[in-house]
Amino acid sequence: MKVETLQINSHRREELINITAAIEKFVRNAGLREGVVIIFVPHTTAAVTINENADPDVKHDIIHKLNSEFPQDDSYLHGEGNSDAHIKSSLIGASLQIIVTEGKLLLGTWQGIYFCEFDGPRSRNVYIKAIAC
Amino acid sequence: MKVETLQINSHRREELINITAAIEKFVRNAGLREGVVIIFVPHTTAAVTINENADPDVKHDIIHKLNSEFPQDDSYLHGEGNSDAHIKSSLIGASLQIIVTEGKLLLGTWQGIYFCEFDGPRSRNVYIKAIAC
Amino acid sequence: MKVETLQINSHRREELINITAAIEKFVRNAGLREGVVIIFVPHTTAAVTINENADPDVKHDIIHKLNSEFPQDDSYLHGEGNSDAHIKSSLIGASLQIIVTEGKLLLGTWQGIYFCEFDGPRSRNVYIKAIAC
Repeated sequence: MKVETLQINSHRREELINITAAIEKFVRNAGLREGVVIIFVPHTTAAVTINENADPDVKHDIIHKLNSEFPQDDSYLHGEGNSDAHIKSSLIGASLQIIVTEGKLLLGTWQGIYFCEFDGPRSRNVYIKAIAC
Repeated sequence: MKVETLQINSHRREELINITAAIEKFVRNAGLREGVVIIFVPHTTAAVTINENADPDVKHDIIHKLNSEFPQDDSYLHGEGNSDAHIKSSLIGASLQIIVTEGKLLLGTWQGIYFCEFDGPRSRNVYIKAIAC
Repeated sequence: MKVETLQINSHRREELINITAAIEKFVRNAGLREGVVIIFVPHTTAAVTINENADPDVKHDIIHKLNSEFPQDDSYLHGEGNSDAHIKSSLIGASLQIIVTEGKLLLGTWQGIYFCEFDGPRSRNVYIKAIAC
């Protein structure tokens, strides 16, 4: 099946953007009933993760605590001032896979899929691919 | 192939539970000879990882160091007192894939698969799915 | 398709080694046009990640900051003196998946694939497997 590109505009330097509905729409449009969806972020200062979809304070706490452990301003060599974003990208990770069954993402009740912006605001892409199996 | 659910009971707030034998059993029962196994944790305060299967001190050191960097008691907004568990979940990750060849998980000698409890004790699930390829 | 083993020799205790060209070669040799490549590290003190392929200072900053947050010398129980490497391995992760389309890895412009050595120098392996889909 074809790869789809999801376009995202972030609005802050650090931001967790819920993309669950867009991934669900991809699964429906692809007609995928049983399989796995691969989500991939083609950027080195962003990532993708799964976390709580209910209380927005969780998003705040994740961003705030990552910033306190990996601050933007530290003794880095890289001259662009975004080494913290590169480190967060590798810690959270650029890809995810989610199981699909009976045409639906097999997520837990409280799970949402989040694009993680660590060096915004920017225009970003997310690649999505289905494996029927 | 069908998705299988593995049920786990954790007994402490933080705990690494070796699920390697259960994943091996899934591969045998599924009759998977060549392919990939997807392991997915449908919880936002738990995760799944691969680490040393020999010295239990490694499990202790991972939990202890994560707690010292991401303590339960910190300046969090989320009112449930488990923001540290949400952060650890995103850092370690909710999913893994392991290659299967000749009917066996292609793990290194010292590798075991661990369910990571960060907000127990609780009753938890792990989803497992095979991709034959 | 068969699993391929890539052999790597690391030369320092911590080192990020660019393996993008080797993964691209695997895709060509496998004749994979559309699908997903699974990359798996069978070691518990190493990992695999995607990060910037241009300025080598980014590699330096990732290693340096991980060492400052997770130093080799800390209050660990594990007697081999490499608990920090086990922790980094679980944080960065032992596996990755990358989408392949029209016979090419679907990476972003600035993305390279890095084997992460955290307890070298050693002789290491990376497993690679293709899923055509």
